Amino acid sequence: MSRVYNFSAGPAVLPEEVLREAADEMLDYRGTGMSVMEMSHRSKAFAGIIEEAEADIRELMQIPDNYKVLFLQGGASQQFAMIPMNLMKNRVADYIVTGQWAKKAYQEAQKYGKVNKIASSEDKTFSYIPDCSDLPVSPDADYVYICENNTIYGTKFKTLPNTKGKTLVADVSSCFLSEPVDVTKYGVIYGGVQKNIGPAGVVIVIIREDLITDDVLPGTPTMLKYKTHADAGSLYNTPPAYGIYICGKVFKWLKAQGGLAAMKERNEKKAALLYDFLDQSRLFKGTVRKEDRSLMNVPFVTGDEELDAKFVAEAKKAGLENLKGHRTVGGMRASIYNAMPYEGVQALVDFMAQFEKENL
Amino acid sequence: MSRVYNFSAGPAVLPEEVLREAADEMLDYRGTGMSVMEMSHRSKAFAGIIEEAEADIRELMQIPDNYKVLFLQGGASQQFAMIPMNLMKNRVADYIVTGQWAKKAYQEAQKYGKVNKIASSEDKTFSYIPDCSDLPVSPDADYVYICENNTIYGTKFKTLPNTKGKTLVADVSSCFLSEPVDVTKYGVIYGGVQKNIGPAGVVIVIIREDLITDDVLPGTPTMLKYKTHADAGSLYNTPPAYGIYICGKVFKWLKAQGGLAAMKERNEKKAALLYDFLDQSRLFKGTVRKEDRSLMNVPFVTGDEELDAKFVAEAKKAGLENLKGHRTVGGMRASIYNAMPYEGVQALVDFMAQFEKENL
Repeated sequence: MSRVYNFSAGPAVLPEEVLREAADEMLDYRGTGMSVMEMSHRSKAFAGIIEEAEADIRELMQIPDNYKVLFLQGGASQQFAMIPMNLMKNRVADYIVTGQWAKKAYQEAQKYGKVNKIASSEDKTFSYIPDCSDLPVSPDADYVYICENNTIYGTKFKTLPNTKGKTLVADVSSCFLSEPVDVTKYGVIYGGVQKNIGPAGVVIVIIREDLITDDVLPGTPTMLKYKTHADAGSLYNTPPAYGIYICGKVFKWLKAQGGLAAMKERNEKKAALLYDFLDQSRLFKGTVRKEDRSLMNVPFVTGDEELDAKFVAEAKKAGLENLKGHRTVGGMRASIYNAMPYEGVQALVDFMAQFEKENL
Repeated sequence: MSRVYNFSAGPAVLPEEVLREAADEMLDYRGTGMSVMEMSHRSKAFAGIIEEAEADIRELMQIPDNYKVLFLQGGASQQFAMIPMNLMKNRVADYIVTGQWAKKAYQEAQKYGKVNKIASSEDKTFSYIPDCSDLPVSPDADYVYICENNTIYGTKFKTLPNTKGKTLVADVSSCFLSEPVDVTKYGVIYGGVQKNIGPAGVVIVIIREDLITDDVLPGTPTMLKYKTHADAGSLYNTPPAYGIYICGKVFKWLKAQGGLAAMKERNEKKAALLYDFLDQSRLFKGTVRKEDRSLMNVPFVTGDEELDAKFVAEAKKAGLENLKGHRTVGGMRASIYNAMPYEGVQALVDFMAQFEKENL
């Protein structure tokens, strides 16, 4: 067995310790005589798993008691509909469009009410975060929506938008648990776990209790009501149990690393290594405005498509996988989530330096 | 490590070979240097996994080319809404209510149109399947809905209802791949995989192509349109990749066992062992009308609640797990899905015989 450095944007690298534990417990979870995959979701053993997972993420993010933590299915894409279906009381919402995922959310919401694009960075291929300090927030907006870290474009909100008192809803899929966060600033924080936390098929929604009501849009499916899941402790129907179990292990791993403050430090150190190299490189350059750079997703280009392709191919041979950029940006992208070790980024930078020497 | 015999109704027992393989491949899937959990859903390796899974279930069930196979999320409970949202062109549907899950589907559909309960067995705690040879099918019904095997009550349709030309939609969650099936008799066959196929978090929908259209009810979320997923080969967004991978392994295992005809024979043999014992027992008795008995879920009672509880507790000590019946039926229930070996049912029957001797 030999592991590669996996720079995939998601599904993405997981901590090796977590995978080892999961493999060890595959046929017999702690003396139960069965795999977590085979376990009734109403069993005592699984209750322990999901309750501990919730307690651990609450501790990591310091989630206040008046927020619920829901483990759901359908990914962020399903949230794009659930959010307006549940939150649109006035049928008005404001969206800040900083990338493809925010744009998809914005488009989906249009099915359900009047949706305003109050800011966008599409004019420059989403390579920056617009100034959100004084936006034309709608007086009757039910919420203001952002995608806080943009996986494809490699940007991140360093300051949350001024929502002028409106509820903030944030998709944090690609920066989930990568640094401390003040939950009280949000009405809803949610994300697919398959980038920074666990296997695809689980979406975690952290939602303030007053936003969980029976007053949803007509025709909202029972499964798409937050209240359905909040009232049942995420066990209204069979949850994605194995995925939740892996998420729980990642939460434990994060706690063992020192929690989110330690992760932030580590992630900043990793990102600095790569960005510092890019800033002095004569071959490679980053595509994002410096002040908006993500700690998680780092797109870069040589400016020559053929050379980009050569880089990606040779990197793969050297055990540096999934470095091809998204087609809308081109070039390369290194996703350096929580589970990517410093050594992985060092190996990438060393490889880039060598490639630069040989190809400039 | 010691494995128990797990009679859980779902999530449920999986083939031990499948779990062993999954454990072996956890850190490095076939030389890719990564776990399937860490793999981009757009990668060549994952394309191989999902395409092979689809090809194998098509072969197992002999699914005709004019049916799509979709790997979705949200469980059967989400299908309860997706079905009317996608299929109700006239806003009329007929439901046959043979248990709690059919009833939930019937209730959810009422959000979307005129829904008729054309048959029910609720009068006798769903302990039988009603005669469905000449039901008052609505002339403008968009479809007729059944739950083909009732997990809680242990009944199974041995003959499909006469739908008088209307599209048949069937939830087969608890009898999926347990015997050969004539797919052409259905418009939609679907089921959560967590009973007979894989880990919770995947629902497989087999749907005739002419039923997949853009003409869905207003307000249907993009993620709840069959067309979204059919057009994208189940990769519109990140699918529940690890679950699909395990399902694929179970399909291979089923093929190695001889396919669905062989499984049927094996399942009949297992069920006969238990039903024959029940039929001669002076302590235990089955709760279902004989001609409607499921091969998968076998509820039985002693008639004495205290004795039932004693049985469940002692069975657990003997390594026979999850035998407690559903609260609406009481007593016991043994779910003996594909992956339950004959030896497991033999162990249960031996234990029951011993218990009967000691407690009668």
